[in-house]
Amino acid sequence: MALRGPLFRLLRTGLSRRSCQQSRAQSVAVLGAPFSRGQKRRGVEHGPKVIRDAGLIDRLSDLDYSVHDFGDLSFHYLEKDEPYMDVKFPRTVGAANKMLSGAVSRAIGAGHTLIMLGGDHSLAIGSVSGHAQQCPDLCVIWVDAHADVNTPMTSPSGNLHGQPVAFMLKELQDKMPDVPGFSWTKPFLSSKDLVYIGLRDVDPGEHHILKNLGIQYFTMRDIDRLGIQRVMEVTLDHLLARQQRPIHLSFDIDAFDPSLAPATGTPVNGGLTYREGIYITEEIHNTGLLSAMDLVEVNPILGANREAVEATASLAVDVIASSLGQTREGAHGSISAIPSYISINWNENC
Amino acid sequence: MALRGPLFRLLRTGLSRRSCQQSRAQSVAVLGAPFSRGQKRRGVEHGPKVIRDAGLIDRLSDLDYSVHDFGDLSFHYLEKDEPYMDVKFPRTVGAANKMLSGAVSRAIGAGHTLIMLGGDHSLAIGSVSGHAQQCPDLCVIWVDAHADVNTPMTSPSGNLHGQPVAFMLKELQDKMPDVPGFSWTKPFLSSKDLVYIGLRDVDPGEHHILKNLGIQYFTMRDIDRLGIQRVMEVTLDHLLARQQRPIHLSFDIDAFDPSLAPATGTPVNGGLTYREGIYITEEIHNTGLLSAMDLVEVNPILGANREAVEATASLAVDVIASSLGQTREGAHGSISAIPSYISINWNENC
Amino acid sequence: MALRGPLFRLLRTGLSRRSCQQSRAQSVAVLGAPFSRGQKRRGVEHGPKVIRDAGLIDRLSDLDYSVHDFGDLSFHYLEKDEPYMDVKFPRTVGAANKMLSGAVSRAIGAGHTLIMLGGDHSLAIGSVSGHAQQCPDLCVIWVDAHADVNTPMTSPSGNLHGQPVAFMLKELQDKMPDVPGFSWTKPFLSSKDLVYIGLRDVDPGEHHILKNLGIQYFTMRDIDRLGIQRVMEVTLDHLLARQQRPIHLSFDIDAFDPSLAPATGTPVNGGLTYREGIYITEEIHNTGLLSAMDLVEVNPILGANREAVEATASLAVDVIASSLGQTREGAHGSISAIPSYISINWNENC
Repeated sequence: MALRGPLFRLLRTGLSRRSCQQSRAQSVAVLGAPFSRGQKRRGVEHGPKVIRDAGLIDRLSDLDYSVHDFGDLSFHYLEKDEPYMDVKFPRTVGAANKMLSGAVSRAIGAGHTLIMLGGDHSLAIGSVSGHAQQCPDLCVIWVDAHADVNTPMTSPSGNLHGQPVAFMLKELQDKMPDVPGFSWTKPFLSSKDLVYIGLRDVDPGEHHILKNLGIQYFTMRDIDRLGIQRVMEVTLDHLLARQQRPIHLSFDIDAFDPSLAPATGTPVNGGLTYREGIYITEEIHNTGLLSAMDLVEVNPILGANREAVEATASLAVDVIASSLGQTREGAHGSISAIPSYISINWNENC
Repeated sequence: MALRGPLFRLLRTGLSRRSCQQSRAQSVAVLGAPFSRGQKRRGVEHGPKVIRDAGLIDRLSDLDYSVHDFGDLSFHYLEKDEPYMDVKFPRTVGAANKMLSGAVSRAIGAGHTLIMLGGDHSLAIGSVSGHAQQCPDLCVIWVDAHADVNTPMTSPSGNLHGQPVAFMLKELQDKMPDVPGFSWTKPFLSSKDLVYIGLRDVDPGEHHILKNLGIQYFTMRDIDRLGIQRVMEVTLDHLLARQQRPIHLSFDIDAFDPSLAPATGTPVNGGLTYREGIYITEEIHNTGLLSAMDLVEVNPILGANREAVEATASLAVDVIASSLGQTREGAHGSISAIPSYISINWNENC
Repeated sequence: MALRGPLFRLLRTGLSRRSCQQSRAQSVAVLGAPFSRGQKRRGVEHGPKVIRDAGLIDRLSDLDYSVHDFGDLSFHYLEKDEPYMDVKFPRTVGAANKMLSGAVSRAIGAGHTLIMLGGDHSLAIGSVSGHAQQCPDLCVIWVDAHADVNTPMTSPSGNLHGQPVAFMLKELQDKMPDVPGFSWTKPFLSSKDLVYIGLRDVDPGEHHILKNLGIQYFTMRDIDRLGIQRVMEVTLDHLLARQQRPIHLSFDIDAFDPSLAPATGTPVNGGLTYREGIYITEEIHNTGLLSAMDLVEVNPILGANREAVEATASLAVDVIASSLGQTREGAHGSISAIPSYISINWNENC
C-alpha cells in the first residue's frame, strides 16, 4: 500500500480495465467490514464473524473458486464526532468508508470478485465507490426493504445507513451539503444505472427523489403484481440492454421477510421469500457480470435466540453462494459421461 | 337519536346520499363490537381491545385521517335464549346486530368511513345492513377462509358466525326461516354484488348455494391458479365495471394462513400470505370507494402465547391501515421539491 | 396368496387390466412400510404410525372411500449384509422391496387405489415396480427435493434412498451393476414416462443423467419462473397428452419447505409451499388417473418437538387426502337443492 504517484495510478488503471472485462473472475475476495456507526443499534459490527461462522468460505470453495479471505478491516471510532445538521457520526462513517473504498478498489483491481460483509448499509458508500474507481461504467442492483436515499435534509433519523445512495447519485449533487468526513468522494452514479428491488418502507423525501429522478424500482407490491421472474427480466434489461457492464449487487438482509432474517436492525413485514431472494441472485449470476457485492445488516445481537441468528447468517451465506453460482438445478461440470458398471473395478471394494 | 318520523328519515336519506358519494371520506369512525355469541369459543369479544392496543388509532392518525374512536358497543347477553332449530343464541345475536346496524348507519350517515372491530363474524349482519341503509347500492368483498353462507337448515354447527351472508342475500329469502331476534332486518343484497376471496373450507350446503346463485368467489386454489393480481382485477371489474359504488370490505382474519394469524377460532391451513392480504386491501383502497369495513375473529385467548396474539392483532392493524391508504410504495404527499442544501439554514443546528 | 401357476397369472392379469382401466377406484388400500435401511438415520420406520395417528383413515373415509388398512408389512433386517461397492444394506433393501412389490401388485390387482406409507424413499423401487406389474403403461410423478437417480457408481453417500429411480429406468440398465438383493426386478420405466417436481439438491451424477436422458423435471427455480399452475399443465401434458394412463405419485415429504415439514432426514431450504403441494395433488386427482401413491420420509425422531412431528404428519395426511379428492373449493355431492324452510319440520326441535 506504500506505492504512490502517477505510475502506480496508471498501472492500477490498467489492471482495473482488465478486471472489469473479465466476465467471470474465478478468484473471490472476502472482506469484512465490522462497522455500526451508520445507525444506532449495537451488534451489526459482528455481522462478518457470524456470516463466516455459518460456513461462507467453505461454501465458496466448494463452488471451485479460489477464495481469498482478507479478514476484517480495522475501523476507528472517532471520539469527537459531533452531528452535522442531524447526521450522526459523520466523520467516523466518512473515514470508515474511505478506508473501505480503497480496499475494495485494490481487490477488484487485483482481479477478484469482491464480497463485502457488513456492517451497516452506510458502508455501501465505500464499497460502491471503490468498485466504481476500477469500473466506472458499473451499474447497481440494490436489494433492500428501504431505499437508503435520504439526504441529510430529508432523513427522519439522521442515520447514515439510510443515506448512502444519496452520496452516490450525480443527480443529487446540488442537494447534498458538504458532510464532514466525505470530502474524499463525490457522486459517481447516474440514477438510470440503479435499480431497487424489495422496497416496502420508503420515506416521503425518498419517494420524492425516486419519482423525481425517474429511478427504476420494484416495491414488494410490484413483485406481487409482476412476479419475481418478470421483475428480474425488466431489471436486467434496464441495466444491460444497451451494454454489458459490471454489476454491483448491494444486498441488505432486511430485504427478506423478518420470518427468514430476524436478526437485523430495521425489519419490515412482507419481505422477499427465500426463493425470491435466491432467484434474484441466480439471475444476477447468470449474467456473468457480477463484479462486487455487499451483504449487510446482519445483526446477531438482535436475534431473539441462537436459532434466529444462525438462520439469518445462513441465509446470508446462501445469498452469497447463489450470487456466485450455486444452483438449485445442479451442475455436472467435469462429468462427461454416466459411469458404466463395467468401467469400474469394483471388485476392490467387495 | 330520539328524532323519528318522515322528516328525520328524509334528512337522513339526504345525509346518506352525500356520504356515499364522497369518494374518500377523510374522517374515520372506529367502532368496537366485543361480541362472541355467534360461535362457541370464548375470547373473540376481546378482539377490539387487542387491535386497539396494537396501535390502530395512531396508525390511522398517521395517515392524516381525522379518527373518531366511538369506543365499544355494550351488548346484552340474554339469559333466556333457547336454540331455534339448531341455531345457537338467536335472540342475543339478533339484538346485538340490531344495535350494531343502527350505530353503523349513523356513523356512515355522519360522513365517516366506518371500521368495525369484532367480535365474531355474525356481526357482519348488523354492519353490512347498517351500511346498506345509508348506501343501498353498496357491494361486498368478503375475505375469509369460510363462505359463512349456511342457512339454519344447512349449517353443520348451528353457529351464527357461519351464517351471516344467508341473512343478507335476497336470493335466499325463501330459504330462510324467521329466526327469533332478526325480525328487524330483511335481505338487502343481490348475490351478484358479492365477491368472496380466500375460501378453502366450504360446507356442502354452502357449495350448493355458491354454485346455484352463481356467486363470484375465489378459493385459495383460484389464487394459486390466477395469482392475486388477476383475482383483484376480476373482483373489482365484477363489482364496479358498470357503476362506481360504495364497497363494504368484510375481512375475517382467518383468511390469512394460521402461521400469520394464529389467534383465531377456526384456522385453516393454506391461507393468504401477508403480501396477498395487503395487496387485496391496497387494491380496494385504490378504488377510492371503500365506505366501511369489518375486521373480525381476532381471538386473543386462542393464541398459544403473547407473541401469537400480538402478531395476529398487529396483522389486523396492517390490514386496516392498508385498506385506508398506507402503501408499501410510500408517498411524498406535501413534499413538492427535494430540499436543497442551500435552502436550509442548518447553521442553527450545528 | 397360495395360488400359483399360469391360470392364476392369467386371472391376475385380467384383474389388473380392469383395475388400471378404472379411472376412479372408490376403494383405497393403505399399506404401511416401516423401513429405514435405505438411509442412515433412525426413525423413518415410524412414519406409517405417525401418519395414521394424524387421522389418515378417518380423513379418507370422510371422502366416501371404502378404506382398507392392510396394516404394516413386516420387514427383516438381515444380520449379514455387507456393502456392495459403496451401497449400504443392499440385500436388506432388496428383500424389503421385493416383499413390498408383491403386496402393492396384489392390492392394485384387487382393484384398490394404493397408498404406501414409508419409510424411506428406497421403497419406491418396490412400490412402483409392483404397480407396474399390474399397470405396465403407468407413468410416474416424483415430487421431491432430490432426484434419487444416482447409480451405485455416482452416489456420493451409497444410501439406496438416493438411488431408487436408477433401478427403474430402462435407459440406465447398462449402467447398473447387479446389486445383491435386486435380482427379482429389472428396469421397467422409460425416462419419458417420468416427471420430477420440486428438485433443489441435485448431485452432479444425477444432473448428468437428467440431462443425458432428457428427463422432464421442474426445479424450485422452474416453479419460481413458471408458477405451479403452468408446471402442472406441462407435467400432465407431457405424461398424458398421447394417452390416458395410470399415474404413480411418489411424494417425498422433503419436497415441502423445511418450515412446513421439519421432521424429515434430508431437508433443503426453499421448498414447496403448502399451497403448491396441495395444488399439485389436486391437479393429479382431477385427472381421475391416480392409481397408486407413496408418501415417504416422514421421520418423527428428527422433529425438534412434538409440534414439529405433528405438523409434518398432518401435512402428509393433507397431501394424501388432496390426492384422493379432498378439495379447497368444497363439493355438494349428494345435495340436490338448497333446503327450504317450509320443507323442514323444525317444530320437533323447538
